[in-house]
Amino acid sequence: MQPIRFVVKVGGGKAINHDLVADDVAHLWKQGERFILVHGGAAITNEVATALGHPPRFVTSLSGHTSRRTDRRTLEIFEMVYCGQLNKAWVERLQARGVNAIGLSGIDGRVWEGPRKEAIKVIENGRRMVVRDDFTGKVERVNLALLRLLLDAGYLPVLTPPAISYESEAINVDGDRAAAAVAAALGAESLIILSDVPGLLRHFPDEASLIPHIARNGLEAALGFAEDRMKKKVLGAAEALAGGVRKVVFADGRIAQPLQGALAGRGTVIE
Amino acid sequence: MQPIRFVVKVGGGKAINHDLVADDVAHLWKQGERFILVHGGAAITNEVATALGHPPRFVTSLSGHTSRRTDRRTLEIFEMVYCGQLNKAWVERLQARGVNAIGLSGIDGRVWEGPRKEAIKVIENGRRMVVRDDFTGKVERVNLALLRLLLDAGYLPVLTPPAISYESEAINVDGDRAAAAVAAALGAESLIILSDVPGLLRHFPDEASLIPHIARNGLEAALGFAEDRMKKKVLGAAEALAGGVRKVVFADGRIAQPLQGALAGRGTVIE
Repeated sequence: MQPIRFVVKVGGGKAINHDLVADDVAHLWKQGERFILVHGGAAITNEVATALGHPPRFVTSLSGHTSRRTDRRTLEIFEMVYCGQLNKAWVERLQARGVNAIGLSGIDGRVWEGPRKEAIKVIENGRRMVVRDDFTGKVERVNLALLRLLLDAGYLPVLTPPAISYESEAINVDGDRAAAAVAAALGAESLIILSDVPGLLRHFPDEASLIPHIARNGLEAALGFAEDRMKKKVLGAAEALAGGVRKVVFADGRIAQPLQGALAGRGTVIE
Repeated sequence: MQPIRFVVKVGGGKAINHDLVADDVAHLWKQGERFILVHGGAAITNEVATALGHPPRFVTSLSGHTSRRTDRRTLEIFEMVYCGQLNKAWVERLQARGVNAIGLSGIDGRVWEGPRKEAIKVIENGRRMVVRDDFTGKVERVNLALLRLLLDAGYLPVLTPPAISYESEAINVDGDRAAAAVAAALGAESLIILSDVPGLLRHFPDEASLIPHIARNGLEAALGFAEDRMKKKVLGAAEALAGGVRKVVFADGRIAQPLQGALAGRGTVIE
């Protein structure tokens, strides 16, 4: 059983260079590193949902977080894009580079399990309301035995939402926070979160305002200036650190060798 | 290592009752049977492709077989439906019944590997032509070690096309013939092919013309009267038998206990 040094989360932003990320994944894998890849896909889900006549809707929780309104049809479209189109594209890209990847959603083998929110209190169009037919939740348990089984047999697991509820419903979960749960469960040293910015920016989108380093006790302050999509990444970072991960790196997924760069401290390092 | 008695292929026809199939899968699984489930999804792929503005096209080979024209965009939509929507729906349905299912495409871990057809000679609108940007092929190798690894750890593999070419491209393959390859590789006694008819009909769609039994040497004749979609199932049956599978059953996927019925000889039994 080889130790897992890091977990990589690749965002769904369209500016991310999937080929360069895959090149770096293959390079590290062939050097003998063992790790897990987690990916998102929000941007393309929005496009497909619109094309299929079921455009995305977002709701804001009372605490100010924005999330996708996930009715059953949205969940189906979400699975088409995350588990079908994108997960298989990642696996194909890695297979073409000689990495024996296996794509799994959190439903498969109950890789990611947790509670579905019975009712979500949200603000939609300025109105407070309670939504009950929503399929969102969070990851509380990781099927570590399955991930270990695959890693030890030489496969790279490529994970994507949704997760599965304790009542066996597919649930939309945040990919960054799910990746944090995996990193914590595996006892990984680092969690690398790639997106289409160089890291956490003090003045989004000014890339010159990159913050190179945040101490663990500075995360609360970071939540204050993180732009909307970055807030959940900061939450994920906090959860990973609380779970025993030593270091979280927000790094740039648009450039060459993004993982080697992140491992060398390029981006925003939180520790 | 428990022997695998059978492999089940469930077609993509809309009249198939997925809940009844899942009930029976769960019943047999909990009785200790170990097997593999393979599913299709052609009908829904056609709908989604049309909705996304890339309607399905079919070509006829010189030998008279009809198949989906699979350009790269079609392949992407194919993956959305087969690997995303339908595979995850099967896994969720089985998880809800207490079966720890894992959904995999043939790309994942190179479960199904084979040659991509470099050029297909087809007849389209009455014209003979050669198509080179098509992603279709056939399964020549099954990753038996991976299927065994999962089965022995207590997971039910739920497989779906596409497969992967030797050059690591995703390729559209026929699900019935891929299921036949799995049954042969596993040394299964039986291959059960569920569709939305009671079996092979002498006079399609007259269900009273069900043929209850075909001897192995009668398969050639069966190809003569099999309707178009059934022809590939007959080919799959011939390949399974040639690969050492003792019995192939074409059975009705619309009724209760379809697998127990098929195992008891209900449908068209070929041996």
